[in-house]
Amino acid sequence: MKVFQNGQIITEVEGWDRGLQFGDGLFETIRIANAKPVALDYHGARLNAGMSRLGFRTESEAKLIIIDTLAALLGDTSEGVLKLIVTRGDSARGYRPPEQSDINVTAFFSALPSYPDEYYAAGIKIGFCQTQAAIQTQLAGLKHLNRLDCVLAASEVANKNGEWQEGLMVNDLGFVIEGTMSNVFAKIGNEWVTPKLDRSGVAGTMRQRILNNSSLDVLVRDVAKSEVANVSAMFVCNSLIGIWPVAELEGKKLAVPNEITSLINQWQSAEF
Amino acid sequence: MKVFQNGQIITEVEGWDRGLQFGDGLFETIRIANAKPVALDYHGARLNAGMSRLGFRTESEAKLIIIDTLAALLGDTSEGVLKLIVTRGDSARGYRPPEQSDINVTAFFSALPSYPDEYYAAGIKIGFCQTQAAIQTQLAGLKHLNRLDCVLAASEVANKNGEWQEGLMVNDLGFVIEGTMSNVFAKIGNEWVTPKLDRSGVAGTMRQRILNNSSLDVLVRDVAKSEVANVSAMFVCNSLIGIWPVAELEGKKLAVPNEITSLINQWQSAEF
Repeated sequence: MKVFQNGQIITEVEGWDRGLQFGDGLFETIRIANAKPVALDYHGARLNAGMSRLGFRTESEAKLIIIDTLAALLGDTSEGVLKLIVTRGDSARGYRPPEQSDINVTAFFSALPSYPDEYYAAGIKIGFCQTQAAIQTQLAGLKHLNRLDCVLAASEVANKNGEWQEGLMVNDLGFVIEGTMSNVFAKIGNEWVTPKLDRSGVAGTMRQRILNNSSLDVLVRDVAKSEVANVSAMFVCNSLIGIWPVAELEGKKLAVPNEITSLINQWQSAEF
Repeated sequence: MKVFQNGQIITEVEGWDRGLQFGDGLFETIRIANAKPVALDYHGARLNAGMSRLGFRTESEAKLIIIDTLAALLGDTSEGVLKLIVTRGDSARGYRPPEQSDINVTAFFSALPSYPDEYYAAGIKIGFCQTQAAIQTQLAGLKHLNRLDCVLAASEVANKNGEWQEGLMVNDLGFVIEGTMSNVFAKIGNEWVTPKLDRSGVAGTMRQRILNNSSLDVLVRDVAKSEVANVSAMFVCNSLIGIWPVAELEGKKLAVPNEITSLINQWQSAEF
């Protein structure tokens, strides 16, 4: 594991970093293949949108932050995962953002995780977590550092001791939002849908790539938990795992239709 | 400014601290007077409740953490503010909590802020922030590190350039929750009320001390933003500022009745 900050190799960050104090920051988890960031445009766009929505005072452009950090980090390593944390900078106690402060960029590089082939071929088992996805419209969609809901939900999955490979999160309004570390797509009746993320959730880059570039037609709408009875197929996705079909949802077996298999083939052949 | 971690003087924390990575932690902001933590029982109880609700694996008891940290920190300093951040510890990438990891305790000591006398005597001006208080039932009430909603709301107050001294936050269900850095009490009709914090907000120690020990009878209930038209008096409170009457709410003048003045006297004479 290597930790970098603002272009320097470090092992520690300032105690006064607002990321630690308040979760006042954003992050991106980027797959690095052949020494290049995969889906750079998507990660850059989300990070830019986040810095803008949170009102960070910086002249830095997200894509350049990613490229520069990767260049400082890589050396001989050409495959792995770049985790980039961008915070509002350091400040004294108190929520109010400091008038003068540039962002802090902290970077972590680690090996690419590997998952069993069967997750992609046969699918995974999932269920509903008790932990709610937080509701906050100004933050919805951003990959910000306020992730306690995901942490608690991921603990629930861990406590299933391998019975589940992922868990679904629902918000206080009863809408299905996402997996603990993934976005979710479901076939309800004859239609593929994925949850609207205007109140809760992280708008994943793989979700957006599927919406923009895949052969699947998907309706983005609110999905009530009560609709789950009508779900005939489902998959989850993120930038590291790619796409996993869901073989079992809360004990109910789901088919893995051709649409999902084609989508996985399309993704693996790097068409999007 | 001094920064301590796990009893040692430091200036930096581990980059892999889960507080920075996910906001996976809690904090307490404690007034130190005569070298002793004010309202230690209240801070200890809330921190214990937080560590338990978040499932931190630790044998440490919150009150002892506070006392030990203060002892390591104080030296000759006997007045100020102790900010204590307690996180789930360090871990690799990924939301799932590590199986083995003790908490990290990071402490900051700074001077006690001072506020104009008129805030206590004549009262302050406040209004409603656009930024919503997040809704998440499992986290509601805790003083956790996921504070982006407060940060954005505090920015709104700052942008008023002194016109407001505090701002009120409302959640997506239309309920008034709290100030950006305080709890709120309001007189509606003949009744004093303070918002229920079972979906959103931080349950402040000063709020709890008022509920437990003051002469004021207060109903804890949901307070809709639409009820504001019927508010005749209001005050905000936290452990550092104490109690500030509200003289003006969204441009509407409010009286400062004897009940508030008595409460401030009671608090200043250290009766609770």
